[in-house]
This record gives sequence, C-alpha cells and structure tokens, in this order.
Amino acid sequence: MKKIFFKDLENYFDKEIEISGFVENIRNIKWVQFLVLRDSTDKVQVTIEKSEEANKEMADLVNNLTVESTIKVTGTLKKNDNVRLRGMEFIPTKIEVTSTSDAELPINIHDKEAQLIDQRLDYRWLDLRNEYNFNIFKIQSDLVKYMREYLYNNDFTEIHTPKLIGAASESGSEVFEVKYFDRKAYLAQSPQFYKQMAMASGYDRVFEVAPVFRAENSNTNRHTTEFTGFDLEFAYIDSYRDVMDLEEELLTYALTKLNEKYGEKVKEIYGKEIVVPKVKFPRIKLSDLYLELEKRYDYKIDDSEKNDLTTEAERLSYKYAMEEFGSEFIFVTDFPKDKRAFYHMRKNDVPEGYDLIYRGVEITTGAQREHRYDVLKKQAEEKGLDKDIEFYLEFFKYGCPPHGGFGLGIDRLTMLVLGIPSIKESMMIFRGPNRLTP
Amino acid sequence: MKKIFFKDLENYFDKEIEISGFVENIRNIKWVQFLVLRDSTDKVQVTIEKSEEANKEMADLVNNLTVESTIKVTGTLKKNDNVRLRGMEFIPTKIEVTSTSDAELPINIHDKEAQLIDQRLDYRWLDLRNEYNFNIFKIQSDLVKYMREYLYNNDFTEIHTPKLIGAASESGSEVFEVKYFDRKAYLAQSPQFYKQMAMASGYDRVFEVAPVFRAENSNTNRHTTEFTGFDLEFAYIDSYRDVMDLEEELLTYALTKLNEKYGEKVKEIYGKEIVVPKVKFPRIKLSDLYLELEKRYDYKIDDSEKNDLTTEAERLSYKYAMEEFGSEFIFVTDFPKDKRAFYHMRKNDVPEGYDLIYRGVEITTGAQREHRYDVLKKQAEEKGLDKDIEFYLEFFKYGCPPHGGFGLGIDRLTMLVLGIPSIKESMMIFRGPNRLTP
Repeated sequence: MKKIFFKDLENYFDKEIEISGFVENIRNIKWVQFLVLRDSTDKVQVTIEKSEEANKEMADLVNNLTVESTIKVTGTLKKNDNVRLRGMEFIPTKIEVTSTSDAELPINIHDKEAQLIDQRLDYRWLDLRNEYNFNIFKIQSDLVKYMREYLYNNDFTEIHTPKLIGAASESGSEVFEVKYFDRKAYLAQSPQFYKQMAMASGYDRVFEVAPVFRAENSNTNRHTTEFTGFDLEFAYIDSYRDVMDLEEELLTYALTKLNEKYGEKVKEIYGKEIVVPKVKFPRIKLSDLYLELEKRYDYKIDDSEKNDLTTEAERLSYKYAMEEFGSEFIFVTDFPKDKRAFYHMRKNDVPEGYDLIYRGVEITTGAQREHRYDVLKKQAEEKGLDKDIEFYLEFFKYGCPPHGGFGLGIDRLTMLVLGIPSIKESMMIFRGPNRLTP
Repeated sequence: MKKIFFKDLENYFDKEIEISGFVENIRNIKWVQFLVLRDSTDKVQVTIEKSEEANKEMADLVNNLTVESTIKVTGTLKKNDNVRLRGMEFIPTKIEVTSTSDAELPINIHDKEAQLIDQRLDYRWLDLRNEYNFNIFKIQSDLVKYMREYLYNNDFTEIHTPKLIGAASESGSEVFEVKYFDRKAYLAQSPQFYKQMAMASGYDRVFEVAPVFRAENSNTNRHTTEFTGFDLEFAYIDSYRDVMDLEEELLTYALTKLNEKYGEKVKEIYGKEIVVPKVKFPRIKLSDLYLELEKRYDYKIDDSEKNDLTTEAERLSYKYAMEEFGSEFIFVTDFPKDKRAFYHMRKNDVPEGYDLIYRGVEITTGAQREHRYDVLKKQAEEKGLDKDIEFYLEFFKYGCPPHGGFGLGIDRLTMLVLGIPSIKESMMIFRGPNRLTP
C-alpha cells in the first residue's frame, strides 16, 4: 500500500516521495507550468520551472499532456504560503504518464449543470469525477459503515440471503422473471421472508445489506428497478414500538457519526446541514395526521385517499413535525390493514406497523410480524397469497419467537441526507426501465 | 433492546428478570421439571419445583409444552454448582408461551447426520438450529466484518453496483437472462467491470460485498448458482505483486481476529484450527509447481492439462506449501493467457495475475488489470468480446490509473476455514440448478 494519499501530504514536507493522481488542470505560462493533481482524498499543485535545464524533458511532456490523464511524479513537497491550494507545492524531478485521456471529454465534469442528467449518466464514470457526485459515495460508504457499527454493537449478525427465488413473493406483479435452466425463477423484492426465516432459526438479531429488485415501470425521481436495501429483523420484542425505538437509535447513531466526519463538507458541497436528532421521533396515527394537516395547512383530500399517505401528505408531515416537535423524522402508525402486507401483526384489526417519514419522504416501512402460524395463514389467505408462499408459512410451524423489523433503501436515505434532487444521482450506477447502462 | 442474552446471564444473579428463548429440552420427573432454554448466544436451565403450590399453573403449562416452542419466563437466576449447565438455574414465577412448535419435527435438528443433506435443506430453517450449522453464520458475519475493517482502515470505499446488466459480460455462456420489461437483461457474474469503472472515476480503492450469479448447470460440493462475492480493486499499483501483498495482509488480519474470538469454539465444534498465517504466502509459477508436484509426489499429467490447475494439483499444492513453507496458502502465478480473462494485464505475453490456493482449494483469482485503452481493446478482440463490452472499454479512454484487484467467495472461504464438507452447508440458503427453495 505505497500510495501516499493527498490528504496526508502534510506529513511529507521536504522528503523525496512519489505521488500519483489525475491531472485536473494544466496552466502553462512563460516560465513555469502548474499542474493540479487530484486523488480520491485531496488535490495538490505541481510546479515545473521551465527555465531549468534539468526540467526540459518534463516541460516537453507537460506540453503534450491532456487533462484527466493520470501521472506518477517523483520529487519533493515544499511548503509555500504563496500557493493558494493548501500552501504547498510539489517540485518534481521526474514525471511519468500512467494513462492518457483523449483531449476532448464528452461531458463537462466540473459543471454538472452543463448537460442533461441522461447524458451525464451515459458517461457516469466521468460524471462521478465531479466533486459533488464523487463525494456522495464516499459519504454513503461511511453512512452504511456507521449503521452496521450500531448493529454489531447490539449483537446483530449480518446474513446473506438468496436473490433468486422459486416463487413470485409478496405481490407477483412487480417481480422480475429469470430464465433458470429449464424453469423460471424470480428476483427477490426484499429479503423479508429470509430474514424472518433467520428468526425461526434462532438468530435473534439479523441484518442484510444487499440489492433488491422492483419491476416497476415508472420513471420518477424516487423510483429505480434495483437498489441497495438495508434490512433488519430482531426477536423477542413486545411490540412494534420496540422496532421504532431501534430505528430511531440506529439513525441517530449513524447521523451523529456522519456529522462528526462530514458535517462541514456536506454544508460546503451540498449546502445542507446533517441534523442530528436531539429528540425522540414523534409518533402519530395516520388519521390524526390527516386531521392535523387539515387544521394547520388546510390540506383537504377525499376520504377515500386517507387510508394511505399521499406524496403531498408526506411533504406536509415534515412541516408539521418540524413546527410541532423540531424533528425531521416522524413515525406514522395505524394504517388500515388493506394497505399493509399480510405478515404485519394486527391488534384489534389494525396493523402493528409504521412508516417513517424523513424530510418529507417515506424511507421505511416497519412492523411487528405475525409469528403465529394459524393467524399468519389466515391473513395470507385473505390476500389470496397462501399458495405461492406455502414455503414461508412453514417457517412458523415449529416455534418462532415474536419479532419485528424494517427495511430502508440506502440510496434514498443518502439522497435525503445530502439533499440530492434525484435517486438517479444518489446511486453510483442507476437502473430504471430505460436504463441498463453503463 | 430489552432482551437479555444468555451469554450475559452471569451479570444477573439474584435479580428478578425476564428471559426468552427456544425450549431445547424438557425433563419432567416426579418432583421437578427441568427446561433447557436456548437463545442465539447460550443456554440456561429453568427449574420448576412441582411440589410448590404456587407452581401448579406453570407445571401444567410445561406438561403441555412442546420442545422448540419459544417461551418468556419471569423469575430469578440463582447460582447452583450442582447444575451441570453453567452452574446456574433460573427459578421462574411465570411462564408465557410465545410460540408453539408442532410436537413432531420433520428432521432431527440435533443430529445432522440423521438425514440426507437435501432433506435437511428442505427444512433449512430447522437445520440451522443445529449448533454446527448455526455457528457457521455467526462466524461468517464476523469474518466479513473483519475483512471490511481491514479495508476501512486502509481507506477503501464500499460501493454498490448493479446486478442487472445490459449485455452478457465476460463470457455469455454462464449468465442468467432476465425478462426486463420489453427487453432482456442479464445478472452480473461479478462486479468486475463496475469496480474498474470506480477506478476510472477516481475512487482509488473500492470493495463490494454482494451476490454474484453463475448459470452453471453443475452439481458439485463447490458450485452454486448464487453466492456472496467479496470483491476489491485498488489503484496506483506497480504490479500484481501489490495485489498479492494486499490479499495476504487482508486474510492474515481477518484470520487473526477470527482466531481471537472463535479459535476455541471452532476447535470444539468443527474440530479445526484457525491457523493464523505466520509467514508470507509462498509464490510459485504454474510450470514450476507442476515440476515440484511431479518430483515430490510423482504427479504426472499430460502436458495439455498443464496450462491450468487441475483439482488434484490444487490439492497437492497444499501439501507442497505445507511441507516446504509451513503455509496453508500458496499463490500460483504465470498462467497462460488463453486461460485468463482478457482484462488481465500481460507482460511478455504472460498475464500479470495469480490464483490463491487455500487448504488445497482455489479461493481467488487476482491480477493487475490492463488499463491502457488500445491494449485492452486488442486483448478483448482476440477473445472475440469487443462488441458486447464496448461500454466497458470506454471507461479507459479518458484517463484511468494502473490498478488491480481480486474477488473471493465468502461462502467458499467460510467452508475452508471451518472445514465444512460442502458449499451447500456454508451458505445460509443454498441455490443450485435443482434448488430454489426454501
């Protein structure tokens, strides 16, 4: 691991070292050439005095150099307060071109507004060199790291469950079909059944971070056919309130850590504050929420729509939660059973689950699960699902502790934390009905 | 998070607490009932004195209790040196059955040899309750955690790349086809192209842990149609030797940590030692390996087979590495180019890559990648692949640093670390040509 990261250059003043990076900028003036080199962590200026005889070969090389090529430079790092970029410059004795970029780039990587999103996605590997885009995935990596950290600290086991499944689960309509030798398989829409299987096996607390697939033929800023799900399930709960408590703690932990590391950077690049929750997330019944929204914001919709959250109601619930509780998060509970999956436990016929709204967008559905075989079977039959999921019902025949859990999409979460306008940009490589490349 | 894990019970002597778990065993004798409760971390005995009037209701409940049901018990934990199980017993005041198991279990969960593997896999959620099987995935979770930890410590970014791809990559023959709205998509056989894309975007060091799909219609103890890949790629390397160095360090780090936490347990349950590498992994050219194997073990095969590692040669290379170097690992290098992917860099026409053999089984192919557009294009053309992978070749047109990486399957690695006989058992839920359930 010999690469010296530019973020660590301060440790190498006046030493002969080798540095490597992309050539972000070339300024070639009368007596001197300035290069700006970029790696994944920072930038540094390389200065070549053309007048010096020993530098002739390097100066010629730089004359033919194209931006976005990569080079390896041997030389000495000097403190120089006159250099605006970090008050340092690298004085080279040798430059080697390690890869050459075409002179003409197909998109403007420094101004992402200079082209349409689809054109940028066509050249995603270049689009990601943009500072705004680049940092999304550095931050996302740490966000997931902190979420895992919280779970490891609480005795969760990470599992890996199959994405190829034998029967279209949950609801057959939005599932991708796979040619599986001489039969059909399907792509899992979530690890729901398998993380519950782990409960039946006695794992007590599990999570999975893995792709989930949705064959939804819709082109919005929130939808994608494949995204990374962050799913967990844990046993011996008393109610779905335990699930809300856990999600609240998990997100507060992750946002606290994220803010410590990236708070300043996020403000600078994305103009957003990472707000660390300081209060418990408010909890409100769906019907009460609609009453509040009507009372406060004169939001009126037909009664027939009040059995679920509308996009506008999600948006307004953020306003309400901020005004009333100073919270960016709000749990909405007590959805009617026809709007919830058959495996949600019910009490007095009301599902024991919730949606979590963050900054006006739903990020999670969570619930206590029905773990009693007979009840579960009946609820599946009601939705006409019992045949395809017989294998799943079997999980509950030989003992399975009470349990609950939730899932969230890390791409959507990233989008909301950083205030990115579209899911297309908060996924490293977006997939939609019309996009399978690059 | 109120659940008290049984591993922590020592902290609760003489306190009134609530414990929960599966009923592993019921012994009902004249004056007393003994239950053994199990959770994901340990076991504990619950003792009910039938003679006591106050216990009548509990005693009746236990009379009707089936093993593998789950219960919640309120009571007090007492030290008792006469109890063989951990020198403690739980004296209950209240028992609640939280789920009921059918009296008859379809498989014997305590003796995994009592039934055939396929029968066990049919009831995998019960099969996993077996101590041997159960612990595989607790250990695997930590193995992956330690591997990630090493990479985080070395400035790697975790990425998530799409599994739905537009063209059959690398080699079209073993790829699953997906019905993608009105066209076809394919399931990625590895994140190879996308982790390299991240290099072109400037991420420097990336890794991904995610499912990979192989449409191989073969039923062996080593093959599966879906497994969890652990892939990484890093930039600014000087040669594929840097890749071998990194893999060596990564595995040594992970095995060291794994041994600290599980060394004793693994010996006890799996009869295997987690051997922490103490020396550099030996490195040998393929042709030299065959010379050694012939010289030492009289292993003779036809010259036509010597351009690749046979299964038997893998096995013998373990023997050789142990005898000569005291190493369970051995790197084999200098494979002929027709046996390696087109994207491996070549030097004097020899691919700059390696296979890593661990305990006689290949676990990794790694290499420096060809990052020069013109050379890469030529190598792809040679293999007749240039059309389908045009999008991939584009990644190298606008600057891309020298880089390399490798992939390994965590299920196979787990299998080898613990000495599990088949990949079917080292995956939580196995997938093969004839198995899509549970």
